Amino acid sequence: MASSKTVGEYLIDRLYDLGVRHVFGVPGDFALGFFDLLAHSKLQVVNTCDEQGAGFAADAYSRLKGIGVLCVTYCVGGLKVMNPVAQAYAEKSPVIVISGAPGIKERVKHPVLHHKIKDFDTQFRMFEQITVASTVLRDGESACREIDRVLESVLRFKLPVYIEFPRDVVGLPIKLEDHRKTLPEEADQETFQEAISEAVKMINAAQKLVIIAGIELHRFGLQDSLLRFVEKTGIPAATTIDGKSVISDRNPLSIGVYEGAMGFENVRLYVESSDCVILLGAILSDVNLGGFTAHLDQRKIINATNEKVSIRHHGYDNVTLRQFLEGLIGGDIKKRELTSIIPRRTPPTAFVPVQGRQLTTHRLFHRINSGLEDNTVVIAEPGDALFGGADLYIHGATEFISPAYYLSLGFAVPAVLGVQLARPDLRPLVLVGDGAFQMTGVELSTIARFGLNPIIIVLNNGGYSTERPMMDGSFNDVLNWNYGKITEVLQTGKSFDVETEDQLDQALLAARDYKSGFSILNVHINPHDSSPALHRLTESLGKRVK
Amino acid sequence: MASSKTVGEYLIDRLYDLGVRHVFGVPGDFALGFFDLLAHSKLQVVNTCDEQGAGFAADAYSRLKGIGVLCVTYCVGGLKVMNPVAQAYAEKSPVIVISGAPGIKERVKHPVLHHKIKDFDTQFRMFEQITVASTVLRDGESACREIDRVLESVLRFKLPVYIEFPRDVVGLPIKLEDHRKTLPEEADQETFQEAISEAVKMINAAQKLVIIAGIELHRFGLQDSLLRFVEKTGIPAATTIDGKSVISDRNPLSIGVYEGAMGFENVRLYVESSDCVILLGAILSDVNLGGFTAHLDQRKIINATNEKVSIRHHGYDNVTLRQFLEGLIGGDIKKRELTSIIPRRTPPTAFVPVQGRQLTTHRLFHRINSGLEDNTVVIAEPGDALFGGADLYIHGATEFISPAYYLSLGFAVPAVLGVQLARPDLRPLVLVGDGAFQMTGVELSTIARFGLNPIIIVLNNGGYSTERPMMDGSFNDVLNWNYGKITEVLQTGKSFDVETEDQLDQALLAARDYKSGFSILNVHINPHDSSPALHRLTESLGKRVK
Repeated sequence: MASSKTVGEYLIDRLYDLGVRHVFGVPGDFALGFFDLLAHSKLQVVNTCDEQGAGFAADAYSRLKGIGVLCVTYCVGGLKVMNPVAQAYAEKSPVIVISGAPGIKERVKHPVLHHKIKDFDTQFRMFEQITVASTVLRDGESACREIDRVLESVLRFKLPVYIEFPRDVVGLPIKLEDHRKTLPEEADQETFQEAISEAVKMINAAQKLVIIAGIELHRFGLQDSLLRFVEKTGIPAATTIDGKSVISDRNPLSIGVYEGAMGFENVRLYVESSDCVILLGAILSDVNLGGFTAHLDQRKIINATNEKVSIRHHGYDNVTLRQFLEGLIGGDIKKRELTSIIPRRTPPTAFVPVQGRQLTTHRLFHRINSGLEDNTVVIAEPGDALFGGADLYIHGATEFISPAYYLSLGFAVPAVLGVQLARPDLRPLVLVGDGAFQMTGVELSTIARFGLNPIIIVLNNGGYSTERPMMDGSFNDVLNWNYGKITEVLQTGKSFDVETEDQLDQALLAARDYKSGFSILNVHINPHDSSPALHRLTESLGKRVK
Repeated sequence: MASSKTVGEYLIDRLYDLGVRHVFGVPGDFALGFFDLLAHSKLQVVNTCDEQGAGFAADAYSRLKGIGVLCVTYCVGGLKVMNPVAQAYAEKSPVIVISGAPGIKERVKHPVLHHKIKDFDTQFRMFEQITVASTVLRDGESACREIDRVLESVLRFKLPVYIEFPRDVVGLPIKLEDHRKTLPEEADQETFQEAISEAVKMINAAQKLVIIAGIELHRFGLQDSLLRFVEKTGIPAATTIDGKSVISDRNPLSIGVYEGAMGFENVRLYVESSDCVILLGAILSDVNLGGFTAHLDQRKIINATNEKVSIRHHGYDNVTLRQFLEGLIGGDIKKRELTSIIPRRTPPTAFVPVQGRQLTTHRLFHRINSGLEDNTVVIAEPGDALFGGADLYIHGATEFISPAYYLSLGFAVPAVLGVQLARPDLRPLVLVGDGAFQMTGVELSTIARFGLNPIIIVLNNGGYSTERPMMDGSFNDVLNWNYGKITEVLQTGKSFDVETEDQLDQALLAARDYKSGFSILNVHINPHDSSPALHRLTESLGKRVK
C-alpha cells in the first residue's frame, strides 16, 4: 500500500508513539534535512554544545523516560557519541542513535566526500559493536520494516540501536507494508512454572531472606513491581550501587546499598549471612561487588536478569525479569514480619553548620543529605560524588542517577538536560568533580538555553582525587578554575564560592530559592580529603594497578 | 636474549627514537601504571581537560612532528578519541593510540569489570576500523615484535595505529628478539623507470604546466623536495586547501589555493587551461574540488600519491610519492621561464582601520593577513575560519593547519597544544567559530597549564553560520557567550571585546605584545555576514542537502 508519508515522517511518528518528546544532538550538513523535519514536528530538538553532551543527555533521558534519542551527523558527529552510547549499552539504557549520512546515490557518484573515513560503512561497523541492532535505511520500500525491526530490539533488550539515515532517503515516500508489531515474547510455560515453583519453595524454606535490587528494574520500569513484591512478602531489599533509588529509602524494608566492603557494614553482614539472596536485575560487576570484596554464596542465590533466571548452579532460559517477578508476586509466598534484625535506614539528622569551619567531604554529604526534598533528583558523577553519594537518603524512586558500572567521566552536567526535560517536576542536584566538570561542564550553556534550573555542586579538589591513592603524579592535576565565573561567560545563572560550613548552608538555601536558572557552587575541598567509601574502594583497586 | 627492560620502557624508548617528545592524554585506572612510567621518562605527559582535546592535540602534533602519541584509558577514554583518530586517518596524520586496558589475567578471573562494553575486545575491534595496524600486547615474549610491526606501519603509511596495553603487561620483562627493522621499501626499478620516463616526456612536451601540491607532501615531510622540484623546473605550484602552506606564499612560483569555483578565479582559470597538471599527494575530495566545481581533465593529469602513480588513465603501483618526486627532480626536465601569465600572489596591503566602523568578515581577514609574521602559524577551524583563511598569505611552510577534508569541529583550540609543543618557535593564531569554541574551547585551560601563548580569535556570529544558507533553524543557534570572560574562569590570559575595526587593530597589537599567556578576542560578526568563499561553497553544497 502506498502512502503520502515519507521515511523521515514515519520515523518521527514511531518515536512519538513510544513516548519520546525530545531529541538530543548537533546538526551537520548530512543531517540537516532530518533536523529540519524534527524542528517542524511534535518532537523538540535539544542541540547541545558538543555531541558528547547530547549523548549523555539522551542516556539520562532514557533512564527516566524509557527511551532516549540522539541525532547527529555522519562521522564527525557519530564518532563523538561512541563513548556515551557505549555507556548506554553497558548500563542497559536504550538510546536510539540516528545519524545523517551521505545520500545513497552520491556515494556511488562521488567516492571521496568530506567526513568519510575508510569507506562509507566504517561508522556503521563501529556502531555494530556497541548496539543490539543497526540498519542503514536504503530506500522507501524497506525503511518501515527496518525501522520497526530496530525499534523492537529497543523494547525487548533495553539496549542502544543505530539507524543510519542517508540524506536522500529522508524525503522518500514509504511503502506501508504489513508490518505487524511483534507481540511481547511469551515465556515457555513449563520452564516458567518450574522456575517459579522452585524459587517459591526455596524462599519459603529460608529463614533470613534478602533482595538485592539491580539496574534492570530501573530500565524495565519494574520499580512498582518490586514494591509490590517487597510489601507482599516482607522481604527486605538492598540495592546495588547502580540500582540505588529503585526503591525509596523511606520504605522501612529498604536497607540501603550493598557493595561488599565499600557499602554499609550492617548491610554487608545482613546480606552475607542470609540463607536466601534474591538478585533482581543486578549486574555482578566489580563496582557492584565493591571491588570484589563482596561474598555471595552461589548455593543460596536466586538470580533473575532479563536474559536468564539462575537458581543455585542451574539456569532457566527464556524467562524474562518481568515475567519472573510477576510470577513471584503471584506465587504462594508467606509474609515475613519486620524484625529488629533487619538493618534500618536512619533518616538524616539536621545539619548544624559551624561558622567558619573548613568544609570536609563528610560534612558536605551530611548537609546535602539533610536538604534532599521530595522532588530532588541526585545526579552523581563517577568519583567521590558517586561513592559518597551512595549513602544519601533518597525520597522517591529513580531519583539517584549515575553511571555506576561504566563509570565514564563527564556524564553529570549534560545528564541534567535528559533528566529535567524527561521529568520537569524534578529538580536536579548535581554532584560533580572538578576533573569531570572540565570535560563537559560547558553544557550549562545548553541547560541555560532550555531554561532548566539544576543546582550544580563542583567538588573542587584540584584533580582526579579518585586516582591519587592508586598512583599519583601531575597527570592527576587540573587547572584551578574559578568555577563560579562560568556565570559570567554564559551571562546567566547564580554562583557561590564555598569554603566553610556556613557558606555551604547559605549557598544551598539561596540556590533552593533561586528557581529561574541554574546555580553553581564552587566547593573547595582538601585534595587529600575523601569519603570513607572512596578510601575503601581505591585501596582495593590500587592493589591491582600494576 | 633476555633483558632487564620492561615492555613499557621498550615502547617509550621506541617513541623517543622516532622523535616523539610529548604524549597527550587523560589518565584512568587501567592506564595509571603506564602514565607513571611516562611521567618518569624523557617524554612529557600533557593531560588535557577531556580526551577529545588530547586527540586533536596529538593529530596537530603529528602534522608538525611526523608522529603524535595519545595515551588514554580503556573505553571511557578510548571511545572519546574515536573522532579525532578517525580524522587523523582521513587526513593521513599518524597518531599512535596507546590505551590502557584490563590485565590479561584479570580478564579471565573477573569477566564483569567496570568500563567494559560487550566483551574485552570491543574497543580493539572499533579501532581496527580507523587504524592501519593494531595490536593487543599480551606478553613479554611477543611485545617487541608487535610494537615494531605497528610502528613500521606508521612510518610506511602515515596513518594512525592502535596499541592496547593491558595493565599487567606494562611491567613484564621483554624478550629482545632478532627484530630487524624492515628497510624502506624499494620501488620496482623497471616500473619506477617507466613511470618517470613517461612523466618527464609528458612534462617536457607540455606548454602550460602546473603542480597541485596536496596534503601528503606535508605528511611525508616532502616540503623541501617540492621546493627543489619547483625551483629546478620553474613550474608554478597551486595547492589544495588541505595542502595549503606546503610551499611558502612568498615563493614567486606559489600561485595559491586551487579549489574550483571556491578558490581564486585566476588560479582556477590557469589550472583548468593547463595542458599538464601534476598532482602531488593530493586527495581529490569534494572539499578540495570546491564541492565538485573543479574541472580537471584526466587526459592531462599526472597524479602521484603515496599508494600509486597514475598518468592519464593508467597506473603504476609500488611507486611511492617520495620516490616519484625524487625521480622527477633527478629527471631531465627543461626549466621554464617565469612568465607574466602565471598568477601572482599579491602580498597583503596595509590595513587602515576605520574608527568606529562595524567589523566585517572581509575586513577581519584583511587585518589578519596584513599582520601575519614569520613565526605565525595559522590554525583554522572548519567553517568560515577555514574558508576565509584559504587566501591568507602564509610566510613559511606548514604554517597553516586545518582539518580541511574531514572537517571535524572542535579541532582548532586543542590543536594549539600539539602545534606549539612541537614547534615552540612558532606562535599560533587560531581562527575559530563560536560553535566550535563551545565544543573544545576549554582546552585553553591546558594551554594555560603548559604556558603557551596563542592568540585566539572567536568569530562570534551566534551559531553554525556555515549551515544557515543550506537549511536554517534554531538548531543552528548557540548561546551568546561572553567569550572573553573565560580568562576569569581560568584566572589567567588576556581578553578583548571587538566590534569595530579600530578595536580589532588595537586588540591584535596588544595580543602580539602580550607573550606570557594566551589572548582571546571575542569578535562580533553579523550572523549573515561571511566570506565570499563560504557563500560559494554553501550554495553549492546546499543544493544537495535534500
